[in-house]
Amino acid sequence: MPKRIHGLYPGSFDPVTNGHLDIIKRALKVCVRLDVAVVTNPSKKPLFTPAERVHLLRKTTAGLKGVRVTSFDGLMVDYAKQIGANVVFRGMRAVSDFEHEFQMALMNRNLQPGIEVLFLVPNEKFVFLSSNAIKEIARFGGNVTDFVPSVVERALASRFALEKNG
Amino acid sequence: MPKRIHGLYPGSFDPVTNGHLDIIKRALKVCVRLDVAVVTNPSKKPLFTPAERVHLLRKTTAGLKGVRVTSFDGLMVDYAKQIGANVVFRGMRAVSDFEHEFQMALMNRNLQPGIEVLFLVPNEKFVFLSSNAIKEIARFGGNVTDFVPSVVERALASRFALEKNG
Amino acid sequence: MPKRIHGLYPGSFDPVTNGHLDIIKRALKVCVRLDVAVVTNPSKKPLFTPAERVHLLRKTTAGLKGVRVTSFDGLMVDYAKQIGANVVFRGMRAVSDFEHEFQMALMNRNLQPGIEVLFLVPNEKFVFLSSNAIKEIARFGGNVTDFVPSVVERALASRFALEKNG
Amino acid sequence: MPKRIHGLYPGSFDPVTNGHLDIIKRALKVCVRLDVAVVTNPSKKPLFTPAERVHLLRKTTAGLKGVRVTSFDGLMVDYAKQIGANVVFRGMRAVSDFEHEFQMALMNRNLQPGIEVLFLVPNEKFVFLSSNAIKEIARFGGNVTDFVPSVVERALASRFALEKNG
Amino acid sequence: MPKRIHGLYPGSFDPVTNGHLDIIKRALKVCVRLDVAVVTNPSKKPLFTPAERVHLLRKTTAGLKGVRVTSFDGLMVDYAKQIGANVVFRGMRAVSDFEHEFQMALMNRNLQPGIEVLFLVPNEKFVFLSSNAIKEIARFGGNVTDFVPSVVERALASRFALEKNG
Amino acid sequence: MPKRIHGLYPGSFDPVTNGHLDIIKRALKVCVRLDVAVVTNPSKKPLFTPAERVHLLRKTTAGLKGVRVTSFDGLMVDYAKQIGANVVFRGMRAVSDFEHEFQMALMNRNLQPGIEVLFLVPNEKFVFLSSNAIKEIARFGGNVTDFVPSVVERALASRFALEKNG
Repeated sequence: MPKRIHGLYPGSFDPVTNGHLDIIKRALKVCVRLDVAVVTNPSKKPLFTPAERVHLLRKTTAGLKGVRVTSFDGLMVDYAKQIGANVVFRGMRAVSDFEHEFQMALMNRNLQPGIEVLFLVPNEKFVFLSSNAIKEIARFGGNVTDFVPSVVERALASRFALEKNG
Repeated sequence: MPKRIHGLYPGSFDPVTNGHLDIIKRALKVCVRLDVAVVTNPSKKPLFTPAERVHLLRKTTAGLKGVRVTSFDGLMVDYAKQIGANVVFRGMRAVSDFEHEFQMALMNRNLQPGIEVLFLVPNEKFVFLSSNAIKEIARFGGNVTDFVPSVVERALASRFALEKNG
Repeated sequence: MPKRIHGLYPGSFDPVTNGHLDIIKRALKVCVRLDVAVVTNPSKKPLFTPAERVHLLRKTTAGLKGVRVTSFDGLMVDYAKQIGANVVFRGMRAVSDFEHEFQMALMNRNLQPGIEVLFLVPNEKFVFLSSNAIKEIARFGGNVTDFVPSVVERALASRFALEKNG
Repeated sequence: MPKRIHGLYPGSFDPVTNGHLDIIKRALKVCVRLDVAVVTNPSKKPLFTPAERVHLLRKTTAGLKGVRVTSFDGLMVDYAKQIGANVVFRGMRAVSDFEHEFQMALMNRNLQPGIEVLFLVPNEKFVFLSSNAIKEIARFGGNVTDFVPSVVERALASRFALEKNG
Repeated sequence: MPKRIHGLYPGSFDPVTNGHLDIIKRALKVCVRLDVAVVTNPSKKPLFTPAERVHLLRKTTAGLKGVRVTSFDGLMVDYAKQIGANVVFRGMRAVSDFEHEFQMALMNRNLQPGIEVLFLVPNEKFVFLSSNAIKEIARFGGNVTDFVPSVVERALASRFALEKNG
Repeated sequence: MPKRIHGLYPGSFDPVTNGHLDIIKRALKVCVRLDVAVVTNPSKKPLFTPAERVHLLRKTTAGLKGVRVTSFDGLMVDYAKQIGANVVFRGMRAVSDFEHEFQMALMNRNLQPGIEVLFLVPNEKFVFLSSNAIKEIARFGGNVTDFVPSVVERALASRFALEKNG
């Protein structure tokens, strides 16, 4: 009998980019079900609230079957266990990413040995994309059309318009 | 209906190590079927022939359900297509690995877009293990018991005994 | 007819170091005009104000023909276009630098394709120099004579004297 | 006459982990005396006060002969000179560590040429361990038994219990 | 009076790829004259002879004004001096490239201080391209249309047809 | 009673460079005795024979007290044990070095847990120096005076003169 892969793709998604969306679509090739989950880490200062980030992810993934968007605080491996995920997906980009991801994968395995981390390579167009760079560009009125879904582009524009006028 | 993951784990396996075996077991968590395939690249000088490497892999994976051991020459993506694999597994170790694997994943995607590469993190005991280092140690009579299956340990011992006496 | 290279060398310059000065002199070998421009990013907490950083750069580059020191906020590529620069210079040091610079170069090219980024290798004496390390040393009264122009050394000394007495 | 190695092992130790303890024991193989010293950098927000970090280090190293635990602010090389240390020990883990450590070693040598930095490789179990990851896990109630001495485990538990109830 | 930049772009070019061509076009933005020069290192076993590599480069760069294709053996800095080049161009790709290039740039500067090395970032499509990977793919009949100029594609096809039939 | 550090500094030394000599002098600060040992690996094609490499090392280290130059084949940890060394010294340079050295240190520890590896940082002048680059330069008549001891410079000159005339 075929194995059922239930995946978890955790991240800050502040905001979701075309690179994240690319990973989501790749993960769906091997999952029957994929939870995309916003980490609500209180120690960072995000641009968008967890609720806004979940909203943007839901809009962006609306047409994708098997995807559910949620949020969590606490340990990722605890959340994976709670929702019954047996695989965690992570996108790989640069060398510095790689080391941090490697460390977290080994630490998490120690905490929850049954959950396997699978790393995916994004489309080469997205290898050098980051939410931070996109926010920097949008803040100064640069064009981010090629980097984010249109709903995110509009959200960035109105957020930074507020910032200027606030 | 759950998706069927048919995986391909290609490599030189000259010889198979405990690190490879660890990756095979992890890959089996997400596959219904896993082809472990020896690349018979004529331009390298291996210690063991492709037939010997296949034999050692078969002995080592004898108890693992869903695993088939084969060999191929030519392009990995062509072999993946030929056997009907939809996913390729690779183990990740060091940063230098990472870059080479990244490059190959992007080149291969260009050649065969439908096949996804999934990277797995080995047990931390095996992160710094390589077939080359093991052969170097075995050549000089060092103890490789912790690094390779026992059938491989014996094969290395007899190969280097031959080398000395030949 | 020979091409006219008008370069932009952007940075925090908080404060300018001998490493920056080395890059400026190398860039001048290929430019007829070089704008050295202080990025006035409001989200970081610099030691020196943008005006102070511009002042220290002007003192340091006073004898160098073709150099103009300015400051800007906003996107670097927009500033490059505004002043008519066709080349951006960046100094290369460590691997972690390299990845970040690479990412920024590709993002910026997307925003402004006509501007080319040229990376320069500093003198080996300056490969391991950073403004942050220099500030750390100066804060605790360490000797930074070999790392910064003398006008910067004096500025650091009086700034940290104030900090202690303030 | 044999040379006397007096070592300094500086760090944040916020808190001390089994990885730090492993490095301390390795350093003791080559030292007659080892100062383990807490850096009290006021610009970071540590979880434990310098006094608490010194206390946890003393408890953890109580049985180790030749070890003294202290703290300092200011430049590490000045402290090394002050206590008469001729060697500084640093543990090596990831590539990103390596570059930063390399830079600091070269800067420090410039400040105090007589002091040599020796890098040690931790047990492979501790290569991917960091105080930050441990605090993250402990904050959310994860099990850190394998990563820290038991006195530290208790300190983390009571600190985060306070945080929740405070 | 504007400075004249005479550039040298040295390499194995075995064979020239679209990535090389991308760098040549970028270098031409800052040069009035660009020598693209095949290094005829006798210790490597190239697929194409130096004369063939020069021929393929000439065909590929036929329409580009200011480009001259030559070959040399000996030290690159000696050749740069001989032809009067004041700048050397190198394309940057991965981290491993970066370190090697960095080392060579510093060694060469020691030998010939007047020549500056400028690193260029290729189009992101070509970041993960290498002549070796392309040869591997072409050897096994894979499609390299997207990676090399058409004249090179035909040269690869006839070379590997010969290899099979020879 | 002070501990006696007996060090082993193994390497190819084909030939010894100023960078190696710098590491030897640093290692002597912490050793009472230092064995510098040429690895006679039969699978590589060195420029100088093991006997020549030992000779050049002896000439170069003639004035240094406590240094003995030898050669060995077989496993480095076995040789360390045989000569009674309790510490192995390695020089650190680039990131790619670091990973390989890290791997070897962990493998060797598994084979011989009692021997500790200490990594030293060379003078910044020698960070980017390698025996291979020096041989490449000397082969084409470049000036290597700053990179190697004068006895090595003469040996390189006569070796490459022979190569040309032979």
